[in-house]
Amino acid sequence: MVSNQAQLLLPLKKHIEEATFPMTNEEFEPILGHFDVIRRKKHQFVVQEHDQVRNEFWVLKGCLKAYFVDGSGKEHIIQFAQEEWWITDYEAFLKQSQASIFIECIEDCELLTISLENREKLCQEQHRMALFWANKTKFGFLALQKRILSLLKNNAKERYEEFLRLYPSLLQRVPKKMIASFLGVSRETLSRLE
Amino acid sequence: MVSNQAQLLLPLKKHIEEATFPMTNEEFEPILGHFDVIRRKKHQFVVQEHDQVRNEFWVLKGCLKAYFVDGSGKEHIIQFAQEEWWITDYEAFLKQSQASIFIECIEDCELLTISLENREKLCQEQHRMALFWANKTKFGFLALQKRILSLLKNNAKERYEEFLRLYPSLLQRVPKKMIASFLGVSRETLSRLE
Repeated sequence: MVSNQAQLLLPLKKHIEEATFPMTNEEFEPILGHFDVIRRKKHQFVVQEHDQVRNEFWVLKGCLKAYFVDGSGKEHIIQFAQEEWWITDYEAFLKQSQASIFIECIEDCELLTISLENREKLCQEQHRMALFWANKTKFGFLALQKRILSLLKNNAKERYEEFLRLYPSLLQRVPKKMIASFLGVSRETLSRLE
Repeated sequence: MVSNQAQLLLPLKKHIEEATFPMTNEEFEPILGHFDVIRRKKHQFVVQEHDQVRNEFWVLKGCLKAYFVDGSGKEHIIQFAQEEWWITDYEAFLKQSQASIFIECIEDCELLTISLENREKLCQEQHRMALFWANKTKFGFLALQKRILSLLKNNAKERYEEFLRLYPSLLQRVPKKMIASFLGVSRETLSRLE
């Protein structure tokens, strides 16, 4: 019988199974033991510039944005994350160095967190979890490669249309000025595209 | 005793060990059995737009560029690859769909190739190989995230200086006009930065 806590976290079980193969609740519970649950309010940060980044985050509920602030104080959005997406400052997380970006909740959030140490332990100890991260990272890699192609290749209108196609659910929950920042266009340009 | 063919391919053994843990030659040979060796001359393609992309490539010797051609016929370089780097059209490879880019040898090349089927088979069957791809893709993901940040954040001079810092060896072997294309600047702008 799976505990109440684990019951709440069954989306993670499903998420891991989808990238690997089915598991019993008994197999899931020790994996879950490597994660913690945190809750953050809208506008709270989970990573701030110069922080030591100890954790990767998986969204149970809510929405976040990752961004950097340029010399003139302007915010540039690198990534959004909503339910079942992973987010952190990967450079700082994987190299255990200081953050160069901010990650902020744009809604109240419930997040699972895992430390690099626990992630590597799970990967070393369980074939399933190595397979899980190999598969997940593969598609994350793909998404980033598409983003680079899009930044190099597409004009503002094409980038906006691609965003609509790839992330229709984000359009409903993210303020337009943030979408403009993600696309690298002004709010006024975005208005003309809508 | 490792065969002559395997002897030539020991850099791959070292590459896998560095991301996982040491192995014997007897453990390496069946892994190697999932790869093929191909040789291509300068200017030959390993991927062309609209190809079915069956393979991922690992560079034993030589240098390649991945690029797309825009509506006006202009070439935009997405990635270079030299010894011990992986390259393919990852979207087409992972989704087994048609290529949207070209990958061309800019020197004579010796490459190891692996099909998606063989890569997934190795990942499923061997904990080591799942761990290997989890670790390798992690750092590939990081490199792409840095490239996006750089495209969004840095001006031409900063992008050039970052390129020099990250890839000093490429500067020696890649024509300047290709570096300009990778950085998204004109050849003339690049000359002013040198």
